[in-house]
Amino acid sequence: MQVGILMGSDSDWSKINAVAKALSEFDVQYEVNVMSAHRTPGVVKDYAESAISRGLSVIICAAGGAAHLAGVVAAHTTLPIIGIPVQTELAGGLDSLLSTVQMPGDIAVATVGTGSGGARNAGILAVQILALSDPALRKKLEDFRASLPKKIAEKNAALQTRLKTGE
Amino acid sequence: MQVGILMGSDSDWSKINAVAKALSEFDVQYEVNVMSAHRTPGVVKDYAESAISRGLSVIICAAGGAAHLAGVVAAHTTLPIIGIPVQTELAGGLDSLLSTVQMPGDIAVATVGTGSGGARNAGILAVQILALSDPALRKKLEDFRASLPKKIAEKNAALQTRLKTGE
Amino acid sequence: MQVGILMGSDSDWSKINAVAKALSEFDVQYEVNVMSAHRTPGVVKDYAESAISRGLSVIICAAGGAAHLAGVVAAHTTLPIIGIPVQTELAGGLDSLLSTVQMPGDIAVATVGTGSGGARNAGILAVQILALSDPALRKKLEDFRASLPKKIAEKNAALQTRLKTGE
Amino acid sequence: MQVGILMGSDSDWSKINAVAKALSEFDVQYEVNVMSAHRTPGVVKDYAESAISRGLSVIICAAGGAAHLAGVVAAHTTLPIIGIPVQTELAGGLDSLLSTVQMPGDIAVATVGTGSGGARNAGILAVQILALSDPALRKKLEDFRASLPKKIAEKNAALQTRLKTGE
Amino acid sequence: MQVGILMGSDSDWSKINAVAKALSEFDVQYEVNVMSAHRTPGVVKDYAESAISRGLSVIICAAGGAAHLAGVVAAHTTLPIIGIPVQTELAGGLDSLLSTVQMPGDIAVATVGTGSGGARNAGILAVQILALSDPALRKKLEDFRASLPKKIAEKNAALQTRLKTGE
Amino acid sequence: MQVGILMGSDSDWSKINAVAKALSEFDVQYEVNVMSAHRTPGVVKDYAESAISRGLSVIICAAGGAAHLAGVVAAHTTLPIIGIPVQTELAGGLDSLLSTVQMPGDIAVATVGTGSGGARNAGILAVQILALSDPALRKKLEDFRASLPKKIAEKNAALQTRLKTGE
Amino acid sequence: MQVGILMGSDSDWSKINAVAKALSEFDVQYEVNVMSAHRTPGVVKDYAESAISRGLSVIICAAGGAAHLAGVVAAHTTLPIIGIPVQTELAGGLDSLLSTVQMPGDIAVATVGTGSGGARNAGILAVQILALSDPALRKKLEDFRASLPKKIAEKNAALQTRLKTGE
Amino acid sequence: MQVGILMGSDSDWSKINAVAKALSEFDVQYEVNVMSAHRTPGVVKDYAESAISRGLSVIICAAGGAAHLAGVVAAHTTLPIIGIPVQTELAGGLDSLLSTVQMPGDIAVATVGTGSGGARNAGILAVQILALSDPALRKKLEDFRASLPKKIAEKNAALQTRLKTGE
Repeated sequence: MQVGILMGSDSDWSKINAVAKALSEFDVQYEVNVMSAHRTPGVVKDYAESAISRGLSVIICAAGGAAHLAGVVAAHTTLPIIGIPVQTELAGGLDSLLSTVQMPGDIAVATVGTGSGGARNAGILAVQILALSDPALRKKLEDFRASLPKKIAEKNAALQTRLKTGE
Repeated sequence: MQVGILMGSDSDWSKINAVAKALSEFDVQYEVNVMSAHRTPGVVKDYAESAISRGLSVIICAAGGAAHLAGVVAAHTTLPIIGIPVQTELAGGLDSLLSTVQMPGDIAVATVGTGSGGARNAGILAVQILALSDPALRKKLEDFRASLPKKIAEKNAALQTRLKTGE
Repeated sequence: MQVGILMGSDSDWSKINAVAKALSEFDVQYEVNVMSAHRTPGVVKDYAESAISRGLSVIICAAGGAAHLAGVVAAHTTLPIIGIPVQTELAGGLDSLLSTVQMPGDIAVATVGTGSGGARNAGILAVQILALSDPALRKKLEDFRASLPKKIAEKNAALQTRLKTGE
Repeated sequence: MQVGILMGSDSDWSKINAVAKALSEFDVQYEVNVMSAHRTPGVVKDYAESAISRGLSVIICAAGGAAHLAGVVAAHTTLPIIGIPVQTELAGGLDSLLSTVQMPGDIAVATVGTGSGGARNAGILAVQILALSDPALRKKLEDFRASLPKKIAEKNAALQTRLKTGE
Repeated sequence: MQVGILMGSDSDWSKINAVAKALSEFDVQYEVNVMSAHRTPGVVKDYAESAISRGLSVIICAAGGAAHLAGVVAAHTTLPIIGIPVQTELAGGLDSLLSTVQMPGDIAVATVGTGSGGARNAGILAVQILALSDPALRKKLEDFRASLPKKIAEKNAALQTRLKTGE
Repeated sequence: MQVGILMGSDSDWSKINAVAKALSEFDVQYEVNVMSAHRTPGVVKDYAESAISRGLSVIICAAGGAAHLAGVVAAHTTLPIIGIPVQTELAGGLDSLLSTVQMPGDIAVATVGTGSGGARNAGILAVQILALSDPALRKKLEDFRASLPKKIAEKNAALQTRLKTGE
Repeated sequence: MQVGILMGSDSDWSKINAVAKALSEFDVQYEVNVMSAHRTPGVVKDYAESAISRGLSVIICAAGGAAHLAGVVAAHTTLPIIGIPVQTELAGGLDSLLSTVQMPGDIAVATVGTGSGGARNAGILAVQILALSDPALRKKLEDFRASLPKKIAEKNAALQTRLKTGE
Repeated sequence: MQVGILMGSDSDWSKINAVAKALSEFDVQYEVNVMSAHRTPGVVKDYAESAISRGLSVIICAAGGAAHLAGVVAAHTTLPIIGIPVQTELAGGLDSLLSTVQMPGDIAVATVGTGSGGARNAGILAVQILALSDPALRKKLEDFRASLPKKIAEKNAALQTRLKTGE
């Protein structure tokens, strides 16, 4: 496994599975686990402390509310940690975002946005980090980027058709 | 010691020492320590896990930003934990407040307000909890409450004097 | 009764009955009442002032908007008061949260989070406070905590199965 | 006395004395008192309940943070209550504003803005209310309004001079 | 007519008709009109300027977003103006609230809360203002207040029944 | 005059004079006036209604708090109106921003940011609008844009020097 | 074409097509394209840089979240750029609004509000800008404005009927 | 050079130089440049597009307000990009944070917190990423982490001394 995906609650999976889809698109191996910074601190600590020896390169953590998971994992490993703030009802996840990103000096969390775009970007960011030492992955990333204009152009063409035919 | 006071940074002391002053007014024994949920997770864990055996009844945690200290301590003990959100520059501590209070179900943090009033109330709340099994402390609390109207009345009298003499 | 649960509107019950469920899990006796800091201030005052003599140890108050209930109850008793900010449409309850937690010095409210997790934690916090003088309750809390990893592990196992079978 | 001015803390006076200045401009009699919804609930209750019999027509309440003073006074009298949210460090008084204005149905608080403009407007609003049954006061209000364009015109003239002379 | 109710859009009526219901409960005469501070500034100006001569005592204005209606009406009359911030999608009406309440010094708007409670309170506040010179209305207000505990008690009794019968 | 600059208070001038400086850089003629949507609604109305006949093409309005000036001017003319939200103490001007930008359909305000950058951009935007029918002004804008990289490059060079010499 | 409409995602079209409707009402020619500041930066740059030579006078950009589209387009042309902040789940589009409006000095974006009113106003604002050099368009704008009171009056009349017939 | 540090304004340097200090502690080579996403888009594009060929592995971008710099750089390279939201007056940098972190799917920015802690963490995060393919750097990170408890313990000891000697 190259990437570990952790989430604080199994109910978060439907909100963040875009991260797994992104990793799959680049053939990056990952594992997914539910564990809680507050309800299973020992499990989280063991997972984080053994991550390097088990071969992980990046850990992606998704949590909502007082979202401590990414920060706690970051405290127990020197691997880069990516935090996904899961949307809540308080202003659409402002609590999750601030709890994830406003880390004190020395212990960093690479925070992405809320929502499915944020989850996808957690995966993309992990691929970008892995690609630093994996030329084949770099090539895939470059190809992926090169493919984006075509996809947008297709959507644009479809829109033009809709507009001409009266929406 | 009956109460442990923890803070994430020694620079927080000037912002929250009202908590110690409040405890002193009620002759409640306390200890103060600097430890960080992120930089010294092991120290925090050991402190929290040994708190009951060392005789602590309440732990008060102050932290700012992605304020995880109270939540991490709460994850390692069944004692009641009081969280003080330390003011920051982001909206005056909105990040600290949300990171402290929006805990997931099962692991609670009793959160007080930001600012010196919040710190003082962390101490008052600890006293209220301790008083449940300490009639003498209950008596002190009742006396303290009974004294408040007189203090406010004195302030009001002083204001009347200022108003009459042209402020 | 050991715990009093108050709410400002009977329509809040469906939002906060997790507090009662939590207390029941620990066999803590509670009573539930609807009363309003603004519409029935006399009832609230009488309830709070007689709480100690009636044997209550903790009062949990749920209210939304300019959520004064917890603060008003706290002004009339020296028992520890727990405040649950009920979600509203203004930013998902930011008004309720700030009105509950930002108390002035001397009169504290132990505030928990918004949502069902917050309500559950109000119950858990009450149990943690009661357990300070009740070794049997302490034991139940320790057992509860010890049970959490197993529950999370089961959810994790279920997730692994879902992932293997194609979600 | 026609108007009662209450504030939660004597330190609020310098922030809100514009309310008194406004009332004085219209020769409206007022009294100022410090009392706290939380620290002196009995004093507040007595003040509010006796307000009508003592001849008050409007009560203006200033408080910050979990600003309950106006709401509590409103709960104990049917006089119109005006609330001034005192600025705090949390987003410049967002907590005070929401705690004052987001009252539940049945018990209203007429809320004005934060800052010295808000305090002045509390006074102006009280005058507007009193003028409904006081033609002389109505006349003064109309004169006051009629005088505003001249004041603004003078300021504008002064600005033109500054601009011409190179600021 | 004693009270004028204005709203910026006819689609607001369903959100704020609680104001009319409140006035009806107290037999206060009112009229309702749709007019826009931005789309029909002349109509608004004429309405406000003629309000006193037509016998109105209070004008209640409801608007959302950059909610200027109450402020513009206040600029054209010395009658007391009550502003209802209509809920929007931006944080549940935070834009409406701030646009209504944060008025500059000299021109006041008596702002109530967002939501149906706020609308009802706009009506209650108008009644409270009118009652200053109408003893019969004062009596109705006192009776209304006196009736609230019974209503809450009935709701509480209903809740007790639900709790006993298993919700 | 091509551009009219209005502000709600003469104390705003120091906060927004960057708008005048920007217009001067492009030799665009402007006039500056203090007038208030609330205190001098008639003056504002007359100014806006006569703006086209007096030859103005754009009106820039700066106001803080419940910032209605831009919206009220927009209601009285079909000229494009630019709104500058003046910083306040409530979250640094969030109230001014929302009151300026969240206009209802049909009456638009072109809103720029808070702070001196926003004021400067109000001027730049006015120039961009005027340049649509003024080729010489278009040329100046293009030259201005072409000059920006050199300015940034100079700042960058200065930074490099500072870094080399030990800051 | 006089106006270019750009959006970051084709899914935004249903949220902002009010802009096209507004332009159509004034017979202003426009084109609509999907392009992304982040996924197709080259396409955006080419579009913006060629806009003047292709005859465009105004470009309207709609984007959500870290809404950079308007800013990036503004960086590549001296035409006036109008930004529509698309609603998101984070506080109803507060992220989109701030990302669009808080531009640094020198590069302006004329920002309108969130929601369909904002989209409509983007179109109205474009028409107001074009009308500066198009007397026929100015006439249409004046007619449009003159028509608004009648529309509002009709809505008001309909409301009166509803009120009389029992809503 | 391994790391490029970019900032939108040279005035940001004093706010974010903690990032350079962090990199220096780990002997990571970096370069610092001022460039603006809006004022020098061509310079930014060239820098980003040539970054890989010039040997950079990570680019750190600091910007405030509508902080687009990190996003624009991310759009022009597949290297991992770290965004530092620079504090502003709007709620202490809430605008910068949301503009940096809320990126659309496909183009990620690894966002750290506001303030000097955030800047330091941008450096730490870059080191963590580089360490994935640099065992010596990994060792330094592990040593750094191992050193943190000693530093905190020293601060704690100093606090104990202060407390004993009467602060």
